[in-house]
Amino acid sequence: MSAPELLADVLIEALPYIQRFQDKIIVVKYGGNAMVDDKLAKMFAQDIVLMRSVGMRPVVVHGGGPQIGDLLKRLGLTSEFRDGLRVTDAVTLEVARMVLEGKVNSEIVSAMNIYGPHAIGVSGGAAGLIRAKARNPELGFVGDVTAVNPRIVEKLLAEDLIPVISTIGEDDAGQAYNINADTVAAAIAESLHAEKLVYLTDVDGLLADVNDPASLIRRASVTQSREMIANGTISGGMIPKIEACIASVQNGVRAVHMLNGTVPHVLLIELFTDAGIGTMLTSDANAALIARAQGAGQH
Amino acid sequence: MSAPELLADVLIEALPYIQRFQDKIIVVKYGGNAMVDDKLAKMFAQDIVLMRSVGMRPVVVHGGGPQIGDLLKRLGLTSEFRDGLRVTDAVTLEVARMVLEGKVNSEIVSAMNIYGPHAIGVSGGAAGLIRAKARNPELGFVGDVTAVNPRIVEKLLAEDLIPVISTIGEDDAGQAYNINADTVAAAIAESLHAEKLVYLTDVDGLLADVNDPASLIRRASVTQSREMIANGTISGGMIPKIEACIASVQNGVRAVHMLNGTVPHVLLIELFTDAGIGTMLTSDANAALIARAQGAGQH
Amino acid sequence: MSAPELLADVLIEALPYIQRFQDKIIVVKYGGNAMVDDKLAKMFAQDIVLMRSVGMRPVVVHGGGPQIGDLLKRLGLTSEFRDGLRVTDAVTLEVARMVLEGKVNSEIVSAMNIYGPHAIGVSGGAAGLIRAKARNPELGFVGDVTAVNPRIVEKLLAEDLIPVISTIGEDDAGQAYNINADTVAAAIAESLHAEKLVYLTDVDGLLADVNDPASLIRRASVTQSREMIANGTISGGMIPKIEACIASVQNGVRAVHMLNGTVPHVLLIELFTDAGIGTMLTSDANAALIARAQGAGQH
Amino acid sequence: MSAPELLADVLIEALPYIQRFQDKIIVVKYGGNAMVDDKLAKMFAQDIVLMRSVGMRPVVVHGGGPQIGDLLKRLGLTSEFRDGLRVTDAVTLEVARMVLEGKVNSEIVSAMNIYGPHAIGVSGGAAGLIRAKARNPELGFVGDVTAVNPRIVEKLLAEDLIPVISTIGEDDAGQAYNINADTVAAAIAESLHAEKLVYLTDVDGLLADVNDPASLIRRASVTQSREMIANGTISGGMIPKIEACIASVQNGVRAVHMLNGTVPHVLLIELFTDAGIGTMLTSDANAALIARAQGAGQH
Amino acid sequence: MSAPELLADVLIEALPYIQRFQDKIIVVKYGGNAMVDDKLAKMFAQDIVLMRSVGMRPVVVHGGGPQIGDLLKRLGLTSEFRDGLRVTDAVTLEVARMVLEGKVNSEIVSAMNIYGPHAIGVSGGAAGLIRAKARNPELGFVGDVTAVNPRIVEKLLAEDLIPVISTIGEDDAGQAYNINADTVAAAIAESLHAEKLVYLTDVDGLLADVNDPASLIRRASVTQSREMIANGTISGGMIPKIEACIASVQNGVRAVHMLNGTVPHVLLIELFTDAGIGTMLTSDANAALIARAQGAGQH
Amino acid sequence: MSAPELLADVLIEALPYIQRFQDKIIVVKYGGNAMVDDKLAKMFAQDIVLMRSVGMRPVVVHGGGPQIGDLLKRLGLTSEFRDGLRVTDAVTLEVARMVLEGKVNSEIVSAMNIYGPHAIGVSGGAAGLIRAKARNPELGFVGDVTAVNPRIVEKLLAEDLIPVISTIGEDDAGQAYNINADTVAAAIAESLHAEKLVYLTDVDGLLADVNDPASLIRRASVTQSREMIANGTISGGMIPKIEACIASVQNGVRAVHMLNGTVPHVLLIELFTDAGIGTMLTSDANAALIARAQGAGQH
Repeated sequence: MSAPELLADVLIEALPYIQRFQDKIIVVKYGGNAMVDDKLAKMFAQDIVLMRSVGMRPVVVHGGGPQIGDLLKRLGLTSEFRDGLRVTDAVTLEVARMVLEGKVNSEIVSAMNIYGPHAIGVSGGAAGLIRAKARNPELGFVGDVTAVNPRIVEKLLAEDLIPVISTIGEDDAGQAYNINADTVAAAIAESLHAEKLVYLTDVDGLLADVNDPASLIRRASVTQSREMIANGTISGGMIPKIEACIASVQNGVRAVHMLNGTVPHVLLIELFTDAGIGTMLTSDANAALIARAQGAGQH
Repeated sequence: MSAPELLADVLIEALPYIQRFQDKIIVVKYGGNAMVDDKLAKMFAQDIVLMRSVGMRPVVVHGGGPQIGDLLKRLGLTSEFRDGLRVTDAVTLEVARMVLEGKVNSEIVSAMNIYGPHAIGVSGGAAGLIRAKARNPELGFVGDVTAVNPRIVEKLLAEDLIPVISTIGEDDAGQAYNINADTVAAAIAESLHAEKLVYLTDVDGLLADVNDPASLIRRASVTQSREMIANGTISGGMIPKIEACIASVQNGVRAVHMLNGTVPHVLLIELFTDAGIGTMLTSDANAALIARAQGAGQH
Repeated sequence: MSAPELLADVLIEALPYIQRFQDKIIVVKYGGNAMVDDKLAKMFAQDIVLMRSVGMRPVVVHGGGPQIGDLLKRLGLTSEFRDGLRVTDAVTLEVARMVLEGKVNSEIVSAMNIYGPHAIGVSGGAAGLIRAKARNPELGFVGDVTAVNPRIVEKLLAEDLIPVISTIGEDDAGQAYNINADTVAAAIAESLHAEKLVYLTDVDGLLADVNDPASLIRRASVTQSREMIANGTISGGMIPKIEACIASVQNGVRAVHMLNGTVPHVLLIELFTDAGIGTMLTSDANAALIARAQGAGQH
Repeated sequence: MSAPELLADVLIEALPYIQRFQDKIIVVKYGGNAMVDDKLAKMFAQDIVLMRSVGMRPVVVHGGGPQIGDLLKRLGLTSEFRDGLRVTDAVTLEVARMVLEGKVNSEIVSAMNIYGPHAIGVSGGAAGLIRAKARNPELGFVGDVTAVNPRIVEKLLAEDLIPVISTIGEDDAGQAYNINADTVAAAIAESLHAEKLVYLTDVDGLLADVNDPASLIRRASVTQSREMIANGTISGGMIPKIEACIASVQNGVRAVHMLNGTVPHVLLIELFTDAGIGTMLTSDANAALIARAQGAGQH
Repeated sequence: MSAPELLADVLIEALPYIQRFQDKIIVVKYGGNAMVDDKLAKMFAQDIVLMRSVGMRPVVVHGGGPQIGDLLKRLGLTSEFRDGLRVTDAVTLEVARMVLEGKVNSEIVSAMNIYGPHAIGVSGGAAGLIRAKARNPELGFVGDVTAVNPRIVEKLLAEDLIPVISTIGEDDAGQAYNINADTVAAAIAESLHAEKLVYLTDVDGLLADVNDPASLIRRASVTQSREMIANGTISGGMIPKIEACIASVQNGVRAVHMLNGTVPHVLLIELFTDAGIGTMLTSDANAALIARAQGAGQH
Repeated sequence: MSAPELLADVLIEALPYIQRFQDKIIVVKYGGNAMVDDKLAKMFAQDIVLMRSVGMRPVVVHGGGPQIGDLLKRLGLTSEFRDGLRVTDAVTLEVARMVLEGKVNSEIVSAMNIYGPHAIGVSGGAAGLIRAKARNPELGFVGDVTAVNPRIVEKLLAEDLIPVISTIGEDDAGQAYNINADTVAAAIAESLHAEKLVYLTDVDGLLADVNDPASLIRRASVTQSREMIANGTISGGMIPKIEACIASVQNGVRAVHMLNGTVPHVLLIELFTDAGIGTMLTSDANAALIARAQGAGQH
């Protein structure tokens, strides 16, 4: 097949997916290795810009734990950890905010804006977007989401912009908190009634056997997920993650995806093919719909 | 390269073209063999629907000479021809209108609407779209365009619909005329200040040597076209066609394309690749811009 | 009374009706002898244009059985009939579509556009307007309405246009069907929650005694209509027609009118006088309202 | 001809006028005997409401000299006159304002609102509509228009309301002035670029021979009017009136009409017949257009 | 403290009130001594203009009993009173209307328009605003409100105008009635779901002991008000007034204020300070909210 | 004077300024000591929020040189300076961006959002806001503004938000540059055709005698400024500053103010008093207008 013919064929194959996700909000949690590898970062920017160009409305939420750690180290600061969480005093928070808003966020926005002035960084503290409170006084300024006001995001989407959100929230007194990016992404996707919430991680998705990559579960309904927790297929650290996905689906997100962000263009492969490449979790009702529509190239 | 990787690569390659033609009006004159071959007709429908899905605003203008001839024959009617034009009496006009609006137009619209309810047939007589007058009393109801009121087309485009226009015009008294489809397409493209006017024909484009397909001229500015007419490179029946293209460019159409409608997905190949596949004619100023932008994948 | 005084008096008499039906949607089923008589056709066009000019929003739905029969005959084709319905094979459907969309529809639109570029033909297949399925495999492509998507009609009305709809519907695969025009008119009026659905036929309206024109029933509520069916006043072929009118009223149409389309300007006389000229069927609630408002010149 | 047929015929005859004046602004100066005769006042209200109902946008401007005189008399107050103008001291102004805004205006609005809640009184002092200054210190609070801000009128028209304007203007310090109603009507018509400015007076229009009603001049262009002034056809007190009409036409009003307000429904007769009934003055260019369009029932 | 510092401090103190009442509708019943004292009238105009300038949406409703009495007297007319209400025959109504619409209303509007063209007088009869009927045939044209159509007021507010409403209502036949201004203000505030309804009167507010100004009740919930009626704290003529306030709160007005209009700038003092200066009555729920928010400077 | 009376008087005095600057864009360059003193920073936040609350549209532009120096120092990094500018290599740029976007900007936004969710941080790199290029290769990533696309700022203002802009620009390839905040503020004010551009600095304004604070020049026209440069009144480092102010005025900014940011609430004092407190530079035409309007409390 010659190159132009190939191009045409691929575009025509993509048509049903382009049509299906027209005007749909796709919230993408960006993090992990995908964010620190320059080549993957460039592909991620391309994927998000392409999604926007064909009519989807992507929203990016990112964290930046390793980059925060780097700057703390460069500053000669050490952190205490409790239950795997960094105790965040005022100085650590200041460093975290600088890294998240002034480095990680800026780099993501810049990488996209090479393809046109479409991306805009938004702090979770902007215009009341993310309200937060302290999770536990012992952890300092580690926050939990108390409320989301998605109006600013909706307005930016209405302007055809790509919001890139860093995970700082604030309380009524203006005190900032550093919040887990997965949590923020879920809260935002739920408040926007997003079509999809996509987690880019360093693993392929949900594995029936954590040691066997071939045991990847492509799709699961809420009921199936709960059965897998009950029968031990899902265990350990995966349980809270799956519980969070279930909660998002129950709070109005149509599908939650877990993808391996280190696969080049993993977003496009998941969104523009029937088989997909990672794990997709949906409500029981949607799972049934998708099973029926299978032949029609929908997911 | 595996299929999913290929898909991603092709989509990323298409990105600059998708961005470039966002919201742009592309008027496509549809006719010739492409219209009577079922497989090509299906591909044409797919191409137009895809163009709409990625944000372009296609407008289709079609004729239907052969199909009119068919029905006349089935009705046992014969036509006189003068200067290659069918003398159109009242009965012939009635037949032409039935075929154009009730058969050709309907089939084009139906073929597209398989992919979603986006296409809508529009007679040139609707809402004052095409005003016409008799070209020559001896030819009967063969018309020339006297005015175009593109408002109804603009409104349908604003509703994200694909207007499919048949080439019947009317005068102030409501008398209909059958008009040449190339002429109507040009008049509509000019009145809409279209980004592109694309003629789908049965030849590859403009040939420097009419007997040598390899002599295809990919791009020409107005000045270059005139030089080719002056030095005989363009000759015979091509001269009035090129003159029409030049006029459209001078009346505000950014580029006029001549493509071979019998090449599968020829629209996508022309629009989504740098090299293109047919002939593109632009103003001198745009030709210079395009030459500069070449490296950036623009045309 | 001098002519100018007369003009003023008539206009002032018309004022309450003009005010009452401001912005109201009036769906008119056009057919029968009114459509094949040139003089009546011109008056019909005038009436519809006038209705639009004083602020109503008319929608015309038409069939074209006799004209289809004519072309079939000219083509030497014969049809089989079952239960009074023409068995519609692919060739018959092709002919029907050409006649409805390319002849009858065009003539109606042209007749109106003499008074300004306000009318636009719309195929039932356009933009998903009428979804259909086969009524009975033995009848071929005779269709029943499965769904109506009135959005395109609403949009054209919002542009102050007069939609003229031909009664071709399509299924999801793009297959067309010829559908009874009364059925389509009712489906469209119901989907638009029209103020009125008007059937132009060849009889004066509902007669208590089918042999006595003087027995015309001017107004009937749903309950009264049912009583007339029960006590035999309405009988035979009128029963399904009245049942359809009752259904439309119950599905949200405020009033259904049966008028004799061969009476010159019958639409104006029905709409702009208190007495009216044909039969009007309303819900019990509206009938009571109208009885109360009688003195105020409302119906 | 039976009554219903007559109704239909008259409506169809009115159609071209209804279409022609769709959305057009018609400023009507209301005054004289037409305003003090209850029957004529009711007809005036009907005419204005009908004009609105068929799509025109009427604006009424009124004075109330006789009514002001009445109240002054009831209060035992006498006025001095200079050059035919009432010297307006503070008490006289107070009385004038009460009569204009609280009596004449209210009665006009009430008479119209019987036919629906469409009319609204507007003082010239409201929202900066009419800015004024003293004409001559010796005349007290008799004002000249210094500026018109038609925004409030445009907004009310956009709400499909009928503005009824009383002729009080104010200066920047909030001081009110009583202004001649003809002057205010002209200033408002010009600022709105009205289609028509209609003066309802007690005479039939412009007479070539002031003693011969049969010498009524139906139409005059600016040039013709000037010739009539030059050759003495127009003389005496008519000269300043015609000069004002000419000025309005030159300031953007398409036609100025002088009508006899004591003729029942004179507005409808003038607007809905080709011949009209009073005098119409237009620019030379429009006069030529109208002459051409005569056969088409336009003026 | 120097003057500029003082200015800044006061503005900053006003900030929470400015923010709280942003875009809120405040209906002010204007009357009593505040309306007949020139200095107070000027301050009232300033207060209303300032309220608009910082983002509130004030609506003024006024009566004019004393001014009506004045003109009746100047005209040598006497009135009969029954139960404290002036028997209003046709002449009295004519006088009342002239005074209300042509004098009192105009003066209020003019006083505000010195600060910019923002105020507009509106008769209760305009555009169907206030529908009325006779209260009692023996009282003549004294009216009760039967319906309020606030659309015209909403439209004027949307244009950033200040509506100043005089208290004439009309019935369907166009007959006018003079209506108590308190009643009209309440009806309008309720139909607009106003944030506040403010009565400017000649007393400080609700007094626990009518002889002791120090017994002013600053705030009362509906329940507290009813208790005060039950235990006799509120008695006599205050009872119907408080009942009206309670009704307004129950019909959707957030707070009703009774202020002494003879205190300079009483509106600003009530709206921009925590303590306020008069009496505020709210629903039980709002009273609780306010108690909680006390520290935050809200009422 | 009692407190409530005082409050009312101050508000009424502020009224003309509130009205004058309604909907006007005020660009404030924030920097210097005002930004590093917690108390002043809080007052600045209050002033900006108040300006927004009374209808102005403030835009804040900030730098952060000292804060960048702090973090560089904490990281043990040293900088070379040329001509007073810090040579900015990739690491310095990374630090600058973190400090500007992740610390200074966030603190300003947080301080305002205590008073409501109205402020939003915007990087100059967002949505193509500030395009930049290297000033001089020897200075590294120190940038000059090449273009401003104010659309994102206009959109945020249309949403009633307060944009807080950090001074990072980007080139087409996505490379960031650190740009002088005064330059960015001027470029943004000019592109927005701002009413005012306000520089908050550490000096009182323009001094005729740099050693004498009493020699403060309150107002200067362009011509006066040029004369002061010519006659040596303005000299040394003030010359380029004044030249920049002149350029802004000539590029469409109505007035440029130089204020001492260390004076509490200096913004309110300058904007809400006739005398002002710093230096205001305007075009010759505006200077004349202001002189005339002096008595009316305008500047």
